[in-house]
Formats: sequence, structure tokens, C-alpha cells
Amino acid sequence: MTGGLGFIGSNLALALLRNGAQVKVLDARVDRHGANPWNLVPDGAAEPEHLITVVAADIADVRRDEVCAAALEAEFVFNLAGQVSHVDSMNDPLFDLASNTTSQFVFLDLLRRENVDARVVFTSTRQLFGHPRYLPVDEEHPVCPVDVNGITKHATEQLHLLYDEIYGLRSCVIRLTNVYGPRQRLRDDLQGFLPIFIRRALQDQALTVFGEGTQERDCLYVDDVVECLLLAALAPDAPGEVFNVGNDEHLDLRTLAGAIVRAAGAGRVEHVPWPPDRDAIDIGSYFGDSSKAKRILGWEPRTAFATGIERTIAFYRERERWYL
Amino acid sequence: MTGGLGFIGSNLALALLRNGAQVKVLDARVDRHGANPWNLVPDGAAEPEHLITVVAADIADVRRDEVCAAALEAEFVFNLAGQVSHVDSMNDPLFDLASNTTSQFVFLDLLRRENVDARVVFTSTRQLFGHPRYLPVDEEHPVCPVDVNGITKHATEQLHLLYDEIYGLRSCVIRLTNVYGPRQRLRDDLQGFLPIFIRRALQDQALTVFGEGTQERDCLYVDDVVECLLLAALAPDAPGEVFNVGNDEHLDLRTLAGAIVRAAGAGRVEHVPWPPDRDAIDIGSYFGDSSKAKRILGWEPRTAFATGIERTIAFYRERERWYL
Repeated sequence: MTGGLGFIGSNLALALLRNGAQVKVLDARVDRHGANPWNLVPDGAAEPEHLITVVAADIADVRRDEVCAAALEAEFVFNLAGQVSHVDSMNDPLFDLASNTTSQFVFLDLLRRENVDARVVFTSTRQLFGHPRYLPVDEEHPVCPVDVNGITKHATEQLHLLYDEIYGLRSCVIRLTNVYGPRQRLRDDLQGFLPIFIRRALQDQALTVFGEGTQERDCLYVDDVVECLLLAALAPDAPGEVFNVGNDEHLDLRTLAGAIVRAAGAGRVEHVPWPPDRDAIDIGSYFGDSSKAKRILGWEPRTAFATGIERTIAFYRERERWYL
Repeated sequence: MTGGLGFIGSNLALALLRNGAQVKVLDARVDRHGANPWNLVPDGAAEPEHLITVVAADIADVRRDEVCAAALEAEFVFNLAGQVSHVDSMNDPLFDLASNTTSQFVFLDLLRRENVDARVVFTSTRQLFGHPRYLPVDEEHPVCPVDVNGITKHATEQLHLLYDEIYGLRSCVIRLTNVYGPRQRLRDDLQGFLPIFIRRALQDQALTVFGEGTQERDCLYVDDVVECLLLAALAPDAPGEVFNVGNDEHLDLRTLAGAIVRAAGAGRVEHVPWPPDRDAIDIGSYFGDSSKAKRILGWEPRTAFATGIERTIAFYRERERWYL
């Protein structure tokens, strides 16, 4: 797995471990991208269990034997490494391109040469659709990125699909919507509105909603994402396909903020006018059409926001020192 | 202009010169990408006229003063630099990404910071559509690249459109179909079937058609492309838009090969079975819908293949020593 110290990666790694898999994580350990060594502490434990091997390396560092060995021996490659902040991608487009595209080109070329039998699952973002032309957004919706991150992730999606088609490196792409849950980076305001809201509620601060907050989102609890990625690795018809993965429950930002405040028993919702830099990359209401994922992967989103946010708040309350 | 020593770039540079423009060319002078110093010799002349300044540099070499100066002083930027071989892009994906995407990210970031008032015209390729789902292919057709070149060019298209939207760097994208004419690189088999056919006819060799040769193409004479790029630089509604630019005349490969043999009075058409590596990246019949370019740019393709190929053959006959 690449990016296994990050938010989704660590939840997936722990789930794989619970299911008896041998897990090796390749991770460049970039704090700002969400990597956190405490993420691999299983629920109920006080320390990492050291059952998961972590290779501290960039996926593009193919001159290092450990990176090549990890790529060569993997039966399944969950490819989650990357720069995930949309704001950072605008501030440093070249770094975003290097992390999300160039490194991936190097890594996929290694895989297709040395381990073409691996099954690859790549996580991407619904951000690449930009302003939705229609709702819910399905896989046929035109791609029109509103930030550099959408461009660089899309290029890497396409390389996965091309290598599947040309070299038979069985790969599929999961385009995720707003994911929340345990093990997300909460420390600053780089990773979307949900972790910001959650941190502010935990710290009994104001949750700032831009404008009226009537834009709808289909937030996904991380356990539902983990289940989807596991199904994507196994489903016989997944390779070569892209899946939009979202929730059937759509809530507007104002409602989401209110639910977080309620779950935390702290914080308050505050409405402010749109700051211009955010307005420029905002996409209005968004929710995805997950029917292709349901049909081909046999996946269903299971967790209502009220339930997911309660578990999330409980997790961070217990592990505040590692996340706040 | 970037890539002004190349095929389309040099024809455009000479046309700009004839129209009284001051032209400065940024070109990394990569022979294999089509750069040829003889390309800037105007029709009827025996030597370059030295009216066009050529800065020999990669567009990403922004630490060089000449590169920055060229970017800063340009009123119009015709952005044509890049690696153009689809076959090479599969053999060296990282080099293709570096040339077509990373360099462009650096260059566009320079432009948007230092010369946001420039008008930018970026040339792209219809190859990024892949196997057409319907014909003629319009701008709404899904993007599904069948080679790395399609991925890297698409990413750079998207950056142009994003910087137009976010920073007001007025940019448009012209997706070209098979272009032919004077000043194309004929020396090897890297740049598509038309230059290969033309070279073989000039050398009285066999023009190899894979299979039956019934796939249709809408070939564009380079003068028509030059006119389109000039219109795109001036049309008030062009910025922020993508245009598919092709010909209304569709001919199959067998017919095209026959016309080239007739125009050259040499060579012969030979049918052979598909080689597997070409078959993998072939896209069947393709022709584009240029109605958006006609409507918004006021452009029309003017040159029938029979006329264009006659001029092309005459050009190379006269300048054989620089092209063969």
C-alpha cells in the first residue's frame, strides 16, 4: 500500500490486518499530506503493534531496494499516496504535479515492468469534475478541474487505465467525495472543510460556514471507503473502470456543521461571507451517483452522518494528543 | 512563440512575419521533436532571413534571462512546444511528462505571474479522445487517451483553462487532427502516418498501409492550421475554450496513400497486416466536428487534400537536402 500512514490508508491497513492480510506500507511520511505515525495504532491499543511494515520512502524512489521489493512482492497495491490539499496545489502547482503525477508515473512504470500481475486500486477525487453540470454526478460527467490537484490526479487516473488497457496491469480508479472519520489530519486548514469543522468543535471554537451554507455534500465515513477499496481490489469486473463513490445521504454545509457541534457538545456555527480565494475554487452543491460502484463492486454506503460523526468525535476525544 | 522551429510553429512564425508581426521563438531545438533550423527559411529564399529571433532554450528554463524576457514582453503566446511522438511517449513516459506537462507548468506559472495580460493559444491533439465513441468528434466527447502523450497534453490543456479561469490568463486550446504540409519532420517514423507516407513517396518506396486502410481521417493542411491559430489569438470569445479543429473532407488511409503516390509520381501503396504495437494504440476512424471553431473563431478549412499534398510534395522536392 502506498500512503498507508495517511488518513484513508491507515484505516485500510488496519482493516487488512484484522482480515489476516500481510500489509506493507510505502509512505514518504509527509505530515502535511496526512501521514501520522500514530495512525497505525489499532483501536483499543496504546502503541503501534508493529505488525505492519512501514517503508519510509517516496514511491518514486525506485533506486531503493525496499521500494522495488515492496512493488515486486505485492499481490494487491492500494495506491493512496499523494498530496491531498486543493489549496496547496494552487500555491505550489509544481510540487503537486511532482507528488501526484511524476512520482506515480515512475511507480506505475516499475509495477508494469516488474509486477504486472498485481491488482491496483487508485484513489482519486471528485474535485476533478469541477462545477457539476448535473446532479448526481456519474462517471460520464465531463472532467473540468477547478484546481491543480484535479488536473494532476486525473492524469494519474488516466495512466492507471492506460496501463490496464495496454499492459494488462489490472487497475481501477475510485473517485472519492468528502471523506471523514478517525485518523484524518486535523491540525490545519489544508484538507477540506470536514476536518476543519471537527477540530473546531473539539476545541469549542466557531465552525465557520461561508455564505448561507446551502451547498449540499455527500460525506463518506472512512469505514465505508475502506470497504469499497477492498471490494474494488477483488471484484472481477473492476479493472479498467472508474467509480464515483459517494453517499446517498446529502446534507448541506449548515446541517453538517450543526451535526458536528451536536455530536461534540461543543463549538458553534458561524456564518461569514465567502473569502475570494475559496470562492474561486468552490464548486457549489455536489453529490455523486454511486450506482456503478454498487452494481459492479457490490458496495453500499452504510454509515449515516449522525452515526459516523459520533464515532469520529469519540475517537479524537480519546486520542487528542496525537491529532490536535 | 514556443516550439517555433517545429513543423507548425515555423509555418506560423513565417506567416506572422509576412503579416508584419515581431516574432520571437523559444525552442529547445530537439531534432526528434521536429525542430529544424531550415524551417525558418521563407518560401523562395535560400537562407534564414534572421528576422525571427530564436532563443535556444527549454520553456522551463525560467532561470535564464532570455526566457523570462521572451515571456514578459509577448503580447501573444503561441504555445506549441512539446514532444509530439505518440510512440515515443509510450517508450519513455517520464520524458513525455517532463516535456509536455512539467515544462509547461513552469512556463505557465511564469506567464501568469509576470505577464497575465498575454493571450495564449495552446496546441493539443485529438489523440486524447482515444477510440471515438461517435463521429464526428466534438468538444463534449469524453477524453480517454490511448497513449501517454494524450494524458500529458490533456493535463496541460487543463492548466491553460484553469489559469484562464482563476488568474485571467486568457488562454484557449486548439486540438489538432493529422496535420501535413511543408516543414514537417520526415526523417523517421515517429510523427504519424502522413510524414511517413510523404517521405516514402519522395524516395520512391512502398507506402505501407496496415490492414485494409479503411479508417478515415480528416487531414489538415498546415496553412489552414496557421490561419486557425491566428484567429484563435484574436477572437474575443476564444479564451477559456477548447476547439476541435479538423477538416470536412474525410478520406480513408488507402485513398490518402494513393493521392500521395499520384502527387509525387513515385512510390506505391502496399497493404500489410497490423503490427501488434501499432494496433494497440490505433483508434479506428476519426474525424472531428469543427463547428465550434467555425462559429467562434470564424475559421474554415480551405485546402482539399489533393491541393495540399501537391504543394507539400513540391516544397520537399525543392528542399530535399534539408528534410530527407
